[in-house]
Amino acid sequence: MTSIGLSRYLSYDAKAIIYKEYGEPSEKIIVHDYKVESIKNDNEVLLELIAHPINPSDINQIQGVYPSKPELSVNLFNDESEVLKEASAICGNEGVFKVVEIGKNVKGFAQNDWVIPLFPNFGTWRTHVKLDMKGEAKLFNLNKENEKTKRFAEGNGGLSVNQAATISVNPCTALQMITKFLKLEEGDWVIQNGANSSVGKFVIQVCKNLKINSINLVRDKSSEENPQYLDELKSELKDLGADVVVSLSEAKEDRKLIKKLVKDVKENNTGKVKLGLNCVGGESCIPLIKTLDENGYLVTYGGMSKKPVILSTSSLIFKNLTSKGFWITRNNFQDPEEKQQTLDQIVHFYQNKQLVDAKSTHNIWKKGIAPSEVLALYQKALSNSSKNIVVYE
Amino acid sequence: MTSIGLSRYLSYDAKAIIYKEYGEPSEKIIVHDYKVESIKNDNEVLLELIAHPINPSDINQIQGVYPSKPELSVNLFNDESEVLKEASAICGNEGVFKVVEIGKNVKGFAQNDWVIPLFPNFGTWRTHVKLDMKGEAKLFNLNKENEKTKRFAEGNGGLSVNQAATISVNPCTALQMITKFLKLEEGDWVIQNGANSSVGKFVIQVCKNLKINSINLVRDKSSEENPQYLDELKSELKDLGADVVVSLSEAKEDRKLIKKLVKDVKENNTGKVKLGLNCVGGESCIPLIKTLDENGYLVTYGGMSKKPVILSTSSLIFKNLTSKGFWITRNNFQDPEEKQQTLDQIVHFYQNKQLVDAKSTHNIWKKGIAPSEVLALYQKALSNSSKNIVVYE
Repeated sequence: MTSIGLSRYLSYDAKAIIYKEYGEPSEKIIVHDYKVESIKNDNEVLLELIAHPINPSDINQIQGVYPSKPELSVNLFNDESEVLKEASAICGNEGVFKVVEIGKNVKGFAQNDWVIPLFPNFGTWRTHVKLDMKGEAKLFNLNKENEKTKRFAEGNGGLSVNQAATISVNPCTALQMITKFLKLEEGDWVIQNGANSSVGKFVIQVCKNLKINSINLVRDKSSEENPQYLDELKSELKDLGADVVVSLSEAKEDRKLIKKLVKDVKENNTGKVKLGLNCVGGESCIPLIKTLDENGYLVTYGGMSKKPVILSTSSLIFKNLTSKGFWITRNNFQDPEEKQQTLDQIVHFYQNKQLVDAKSTHNIWKKGIAPSEVLALYQKALSNSSKNIVVYE
Repeated sequence: MTSIGLSRYLSYDAKAIIYKEYGEPSEKIIVHDYKVESIKNDNEVLLELIAHPINPSDINQIQGVYPSKPELSVNLFNDESEVLKEASAICGNEGVFKVVEIGKNVKGFAQNDWVIPLFPNFGTWRTHVKLDMKGEAKLFNLNKENEKTKRFAEGNGGLSVNQAATISVNPCTALQMITKFLKLEEGDWVIQNGANSSVGKFVIQVCKNLKINSINLVRDKSSEENPQYLDELKSELKDLGADVVVSLSEAKEDRKLIKKLVKDVKENNTGKVKLGLNCVGGESCIPLIKTLDENGYLVTYGGMSKKPVILSTSSLIFKNLTSKGFWITRNNFQDPEEKQQTLDQIVHFYQNKQLVDAKSTHNIWKKGIAPSEVLALYQKALSNSSKNIVVYE
């Protein structure tokens, strides 16, 4: 950050990762170099990036294949720079910023508080944002004080960079899917496939925190390369709180295995298997549907196998199953208040050490580096298949 | 009917079609010959059969493969006849009876009124029933008077034998599916496959009566034997009130055909395609899912192709589709009042000539014939693939 002029009227050297047309992200992203002026009215805040993840949905959005698209609009930064004579959008939907300047009408935020955007298409891949806070809520303060969370001196609510940067999508997806569709009682069961996905691991932990039992199906195709793979995966998921972990092959071989394991785990449990969470599709849905009790819900939030969801007619008619989809972006648009309640709960879980966040590769964006270096950093991060986070420091 | 003794204390020669174990209906059904005594208390009614259909669900119930099973219980007729020393059940769930004797505490019914059972597993394949009417509602009076229906002198509510015998399942299924899951506005659209099934034809007519438009998909595999088949079917369904009729092959060949046809039919229609009704399964679900608008419902009530329901992951997640099953038996158990309201509406439609009932083969059960003749009659009716109704006269 370079400051010019008086302390109350600074100008920040800002950069944003933008795209002017849809296509392969590594080819289409551009680093846009610009200035952000100090806030001029009392309703504004000025934010600086702390970190953002690179999510599959961000990539799909740049490719133009994601249903939630930012408008490719001109004058995105309200300046005259050449690149913006054509329509452009800023990449990124998730990330954490800190409050740098704050107008005196803005309530509930203090300087250095860590904040995250409440709405999608925010454009999180940028170093600075100036935002008018009038009207509907636009930011969630990770350091806010309420009955569940407490105010931390550091401004980060006690969260790590990793936790704060990735709080908005995966853990919120897990919690909302578990609480939104039907009322689960303590002792009830959730069954999921793709249990070792990022969301799946949060599902396990959220279930444990809410005293709900979880049955976790995993794909075991990596076992050929590493014979220990399945055992290691099982203990990893059990350490997170999984009650039952079964591979899809095991479930297919012994169709009564899940029932047996459920009985072993909880001898006197009378809870019902009410909710199935599917992020795989195809035949991995079958054990979910077979295990679900009458009136159960099968909720689909992904399709890792690229195969459709298959439902037997008799389970729909005679077991009265309901099959729904879940998309957190839609849910946030439709119910922004629920989004804030969900975030409160996740912050509370993190503060109480009741959630472990996913491991990720950190890509450090050193302040002041040249646009070409920034571009190289993003191109490398995009080509990396593990979970990537860009940290601005 | 043979009467013995005083006119107030009659004994009726009764017969029931029963089964003692599950299996192929034509082999397992038995004609049970017994007496029914006149009513003895003021809460009772005594009913005589008018007619009942032979439904696929009745057959599946005798086979033991239907989820709603009557208890195979002893003393079904409260007598000591030999056949009932073993557990038995009476066949049949749907049918119309007339009131022969009526206790003076029984309100809302008169002698000769046509009545139908309100609950499943009633055992409709019998000539006489004595019923205690205390407690929950057990019968629906087709001749009842309310704001919609009027009282007919004949006792039949103005309905034909065919209409009365088959009112409870197919037309009620159509009406409840159209009204239960979401609020359709006038001008909205329903899309269905299997549109030429019995329920499908009622769906067309109910939609027309409620000013809802219908898109009707039919299978055209019979076209090879009869080249006129599809054209004839299309005009039959259009005569019933169908707005659009398309064969599955036509829909597959031209994926935009349904949209074009919808546009042709209603130039200024702004209604949405909100509800899809599936009784086929497999790939016949695809045009339904593709045509449904955001937040639409796909309701499955049958699986004629014996293939499961296939849902694309993206339609569930991004179009927010809901897939549910519908089973009228469950619905009747859960909401008997809704059943009565539905029957009111269907009676009203019939009285106003707004519904045409399905063609069916009538099998006449002449009163007084020998048990062997009754058995032969049922065995023949069961082997007949068309829609069969047994009429007792």
